[in-house]
Amino acid sequence: MHFDTPLACRSGAQLDAYDLMYETYGTLNAAKSNAVLVCHALNASHHVAGFYAEDPKNVGWWDNMIGPGKPLDTDKFFVIGVNNLGGCFGSTGPASINPKTGKAYGSGFPMVTVEDWVETHARLADRLGITRFAAVMGGSLGAMQALHWAIAYPERIANSLVIAAAPKLSAQNIAFNGVARQAITTDPDFHGGDFYAYNVLPRRGLRLARMIGHITYLSDDAMMEKFGRSLRSGAINFHFDVDFEVESYLRHQGDKFAEYFDANTYLLITRALDYFDPAGACDGDLARALAPAKARFLVVSFTSDWRFAPERSREIVKALLDNRADVCYAEIDAPHGHDAFLLDDARYHALVRAYFDNVAGECAALEAGHEAGKAA
Amino acid sequence: MHFDTPLACRSGAQLDAYDLMYETYGTLNAAKSNAVLVCHALNASHHVAGFYAEDPKNVGWWDNMIGPGKPLDTDKFFVIGVNNLGGCFGSTGPASINPKTGKAYGSGFPMVTVEDWVETHARLADRLGITRFAAVMGGSLGAMQALHWAIAYPERIANSLVIAAAPKLSAQNIAFNGVARQAITTDPDFHGGDFYAYNVLPRRGLRLARMIGHITYLSDDAMMEKFGRSLRSGAINFHFDVDFEVESYLRHQGDKFAEYFDANTYLLITRALDYFDPAGACDGDLARALAPAKARFLVVSFTSDWRFAPERSREIVKALLDNRADVCYAEIDAPHGHDAFLLDDARYHALVRAYFDNVAGECAALEAGHEAGKAA
Repeated sequence: MHFDTPLACRSGAQLDAYDLMYETYGTLNAAKSNAVLVCHALNASHHVAGFYAEDPKNVGWWDNMIGPGKPLDTDKFFVIGVNNLGGCFGSTGPASINPKTGKAYGSGFPMVTVEDWVETHARLADRLGITRFAAVMGGSLGAMQALHWAIAYPERIANSLVIAAAPKLSAQNIAFNGVARQAITTDPDFHGGDFYAYNVLPRRGLRLARMIGHITYLSDDAMMEKFGRSLRSGAINFHFDVDFEVESYLRHQGDKFAEYFDANTYLLITRALDYFDPAGACDGDLARALAPAKARFLVVSFTSDWRFAPERSREIVKALLDNRADVCYAEIDAPHGHDAFLLDDARYHALVRAYFDNVAGECAALEAGHEAGKAA
Repeated sequence: MHFDTPLACRSGAQLDAYDLMYETYGTLNAAKSNAVLVCHALNASHHVAGFYAEDPKNVGWWDNMIGPGKPLDTDKFFVIGVNNLGGCFGSTGPASINPKTGKAYGSGFPMVTVEDWVETHARLADRLGITRFAAVMGGSLGAMQALHWAIAYPERIANSLVIAAAPKLSAQNIAFNGVARQAITTDPDFHGGDFYAYNVLPRRGLRLARMIGHITYLSDDAMMEKFGRSLRSGAINFHFDVDFEVESYLRHQGDKFAEYFDANTYLLITRALDYFDPAGACDGDLARALAPAKARFLVVSFTSDWRFAPERSREIVKALLDNRADVCYAEIDAPHGHDAFLLDDARYHALVRAYFDNVAGECAALEAGHEAGKAA
């Protein structure tokens, strides 16, 4: 969808026009009360579930959660996935052509933040005629968007599902992001962000960034379970090439990522993570920052997540309770680390399913009221 | 000290001759019973304590632990620090000239392991006339050497101090090392390890490697305490340059390291860490691997160390107890993460002091016996 109302970014920059790539699932009911927005994290996209006939292997990134009969049931809800502004999956981003110059934006693309993304989501909702979301949902960075939605548009969101989140990054979180960015910006092929003009990609940097990130998505135990100290060739070879399976796995992940992801998008998105801090504008008082929220909340954390540990989710829960908000909190005992939010865990999915069953009930009541209103 | 007896490395390679740079503190007693070997970890050297008159700022890396009146008291003990083979502080390493070619060894330097280092330490002890160490001591990778000393030379070590250690790296540990190595080997200035000939240094890779490592040496809490989300300029600047203090700190650490440390040494040492696995040769049975040991052990871990967590030290303690070894274990409640082993913590230092007081008593008894023998 094309937007030509200028967007004033939090950074002070302005984007005159932009496209948002989005995908929908299910049917918007007549009352337009059953829409759920799903926000993505670092490397995902608008393609949250299902697959296209012509590309059956490209299954949506949250397909175990979203679809007909799934915890977020597309037989009941109208689900919207949107590639965030600055992304590299169809929405306007650094690799897009800047109409003013006829060249890729590159280093000239404005820094976008969680706040800017929520603003663009709201504009998309306007265009789709959705005045109020039944729910906004996300994991990790996606959860930060779901949280900010509740603050920025309290009247436009009935439920906020905040999964595997933190109210702001810790110094360690920022440090990992910072090193990943340094890997990209010091790659000789980065050319200050304008590598497009040189017909090169900063692949070395991107693959390092991805490998660093990937380690933080998994728990030590999960890696030990999956790879242990297994050797590719059954013996150590006294070289610096791959000896251990875990090295092979990480290189493969890095190589894959470097082929499809835009380096500038990686920089932008990790910076948006660093900068997110709703309490920052309230002298660090998260409860005050969350005071405008009127949504009901489901907050979920995972015991083995050391990137955004349960303690971080509890900070959010505490601040919500300080506001007497309606909040349900679950700490799922899962071994997989941060990535657990993307995996199929029976207790986790049962919880989300039960939560959405209640939301569906509210939507149906609104729909019945709408029909009654029309009849009257 | 120059050695010209060829060293047959565990890798199968042979080094015909080599130098070891070492430094001593205190006085070797007549019975030669008071020698303590201090083994270094990743980036340290033979210079464990004190400073040279001409370079007063270059204080030894374990100066808070070692010196006159300190926990390892150089008024009582003869302390030896040695730069490991393959290092870059005076011992023969990849940057040294290979006499066969007249050029730097570079990629031709043999892969060295913990086992090889212990072998060279023993040769150094031979040359110094030390048949048995009062203690071998180390933290992190240094502790692995202290552990292997007890296995390889049970008659030549009375006490083994194994601090902030693990019996082998986890998949996550290897993953971090692997990414750090990839940062170096994919730096265009690395030239397959033979960068010396090109008059360049793979600084980009080295600084990334150091930054990655550095994050793992500190606890999340310690980083939060030290840096929090403090901003260099008091406000975020919407760029990818330094905004947060923690970014500035890491870049500074990386820049410093890239100026003084050899890239090939970094690869070698991290690989030695990966490969260390004494239980590997015993079907994973650590108790069986440690069965030859006759030393007394002090094992110390730190609660906030997530690189080598207390659980990992407890594996060593369990295996030692399975052998009915004489082992004292302490888990120090310290907030600093892995780096805690290098810091001045009152309980930790009091413990090491008390342990060495006992060792000093044994040494004095041996010395008295030696004198009595001479008198007879």
